[in-house]
Amino acid sequence: MPWFDHNATAPLAPEARAAWLDAADSHWQNPSAPTSASARAHAKLDECRARVAAVFDEHEKQVVVFNSGATEGNNAVLCSEAYKTGSGLAIVSAVEHASVMEPARRHFGDRLIVAPVDARGRLDLAAFEALLRRGGVTFVSVMAANNETGVLQPWMQAARLAASHGAKVHCDATQWLGRLPADSLACLDYVTASGHKFGAPKGVGVLLVRACNRDFHGQFGGSQENGRRAGTEDLAGIAAFTAALESAAAEALPRLAERLAWRDEFEAAMTALMPDVEINGAGAERLWNCVSLKMPRHVSSRWVARLDRRDFQVAVGSACSSSAGKPSSVLAAMGLAEHEARRTLRVSAGRATTRADWVALAEAFAAVAAELDGDSGANLVVPV
Amino acid sequence: MPWFDHNATAPLAPEARAAWLDAADSHWQNPSAPTSASARAHAKLDECRARVAAVFDEHEKQVVVFNSGATEGNNAVLCSEAYKTGSGLAIVSAVEHASVMEPARRHFGDRLIVAPVDARGRLDLAAFEALLRRGGVTFVSVMAANNETGVLQPWMQAARLAASHGAKVHCDATQWLGRLPADSLACLDYVTASGHKFGAPKGVGVLLVRACNRDFHGQFGGSQENGRRAGTEDLAGIAAFTAALESAAAEALPRLAERLAWRDEFEAAMTALMPDVEINGAGAERLWNCVSLKMPRHVSSRWVARLDRRDFQVAVGSACSSSAGKPSSVLAAMGLAEHEARRTLRVSAGRATTRADWVALAEAFAAVAAELDGDSGANLVVPV
Repeated sequence: MPWFDHNATAPLAPEARAAWLDAADSHWQNPSAPTSASARAHAKLDECRARVAAVFDEHEKQVVVFNSGATEGNNAVLCSEAYKTGSGLAIVSAVEHASVMEPARRHFGDRLIVAPVDARGRLDLAAFEALLRRGGVTFVSVMAANNETGVLQPWMQAARLAASHGAKVHCDATQWLGRLPADSLACLDYVTASGHKFGAPKGVGVLLVRACNRDFHGQFGGSQENGRRAGTEDLAGIAAFTAALESAAAEALPRLAERLAWRDEFEAAMTALMPDVEINGAGAERLWNCVSLKMPRHVSSRWVARLDRRDFQVAVGSACSSSAGKPSSVLAAMGLAEHEARRTLRVSAGRATTRADWVALAEAFAAVAAELDGDSGANLVVPV
Repeated sequence: MPWFDHNATAPLAPEARAAWLDAADSHWQNPSAPTSASARAHAKLDECRARVAAVFDEHEKQVVVFNSGATEGNNAVLCSEAYKTGSGLAIVSAVEHASVMEPARRHFGDRLIVAPVDARGRLDLAAFEALLRRGGVTFVSVMAANNETGVLQPWMQAARLAASHGAKVHCDATQWLGRLPADSLACLDYVTASGHKFGAPKGVGVLLVRACNRDFHGQFGGSQENGRRAGTEDLAGIAAFTAALESAAAEALPRLAERLAWRDEFEAAMTALMPDVEINGAGAERLWNCVSLKMPRHVSSRWVARLDRRDFQVAVGSACSSSAGKPSSVLAAMGLAEHEARRTLRVSAGRATTRADWVALAEAFAAVAAELDGDSGANLVVPV
């Protein structure tokens, strides 16, 4: 599987495909109606909710709300908290995804504080605590794992600090869920994620919210999802999400060491190939699937295009809408200059990626390096 | 097909199923990435957008935005307009779906005016115009066809009146789209709809917005959907939506007379069976697929349960979350007393419903009427 852009999206997993078809064919009825077929659909929905809750190991303190994905969830949480907390301040980390950062700016406005990260892209906990100590903070959002670098954030420590100052805590776990164990996330006020990063269809995600939080309404207009998200339930998508999550979660811990070793082998191969290559976030705990490479030469779009011709897909800049060509705020927050960010590539593996795939990717990089160096006639950065 | 609850949801249409699988298997890549597979996914997305635009016959004045459905679309439109228009007033019809009414109340608050309907459930245009004349109205929402009664609303006339008073116009076309021609809708400021009412999967819908309206953002956090709805595109759902919409739209006009005749035959059969039955909205133009029956005796839940045992699914009260047991605000707005609303059933056919299905439904009603009358021993309304 030469697709190395799983932080953007992943192919549909076979178990998700089967679950989608089964539910779409057999349980397409409106789960809320008082007829027998609808009751069976409702039972299926309840079953999916319980299975997802089990992956999070939540014990009835949190409620699983199905929605259309992390962008919806992040927007809903930020909007809800901004208007509920009146004059309260919000802290978000400087490396949050745009679907947190933009609604935070929009809804909190002047009440938003952006907490810095260190040079490895990890939330600076001392600075974070100092911001909390200033007082007035009612809401905090710290992601679980960064989408561009794979750097794991100290979300648990941040959550404890925030809670000790009376602030609610949201964690965007989009890049974490399905890759690392999810059980510890169940202590937070809000958790959001999308299914399509680990093999569920696009357009389905999950939001965990505290059961005692009755004020949260992601969408108004019906009593679905216990009143927390109106709209006819996408049971086929939910069943597929559940199947993919269970499957991904089951292998997360057993395969972790092996997968980390493959990533590290790839990084060593890249360093051997180009001693000047730098790994963004090196030294920090990072996802097993993701490597952010600051290339010593050539802008990233040239690498992407040449690798694509060899059927290896990697990403430039930010994950989801990189064709928009915006500079990466994540890399800037880590202190990279724009010319360095323009040489940065993101490589992100998936559940089906093998060691051989990683090895082949390093070989493809070697071949492309030779091509690009030959094209340009020098080892200089050449604008596209 | 004995499913007579299509106003709640419909089974997945074969063409939608095929389109979903094709896109999920062959175009699962992130359409926004600069690689060749993603470019093909983007081309597929563009193709779907153009095909949906063609169904609406829109000429570049409107933009097709794909989203998760009408509930998302209605919430997004109401929220966007409420905060954009400052102190402007909003008018919504008294028979709007909860996904319009609830966000309208939430976001417009005291600035919301509810326009009355007549006894047939049709917007009272004279009263509507009088409300506009009071001045200060910046936004109007009038649905295309009512979800409980099937009554067609005078949305075109209302839109012209509203526009002449400088107000923006939104139309929730959820029950109209896929059943009646959609081309005239393209003149409005906002149109919303869901695909699952006409055979698309759940979780995918459309929002039409004027191309000149750059302020509308359904979700923040990415440049997808021309900046109007962030989040990775659900291309499989979108392809399935497109296939189902094209197929449904193609037969909407050619089959209209036949389908209206079947509905009328059913109504005549019901009147012959129970001369005291009343059709809510009788005399108004109504959808070909929907009949709202005020039964002369027995509460609606008993009819639903007995018909369900015979494998005919009909609905009580409101469409989407009827198990919540709320009284119908639509029927109340039409002047029905609560005891009348509690005897009201909604029958809603679909694209695959045949004349024989309608005839069989009337026969099932006759059998159930005999059962219920026998059970109760009298022709009285008996509480459940």
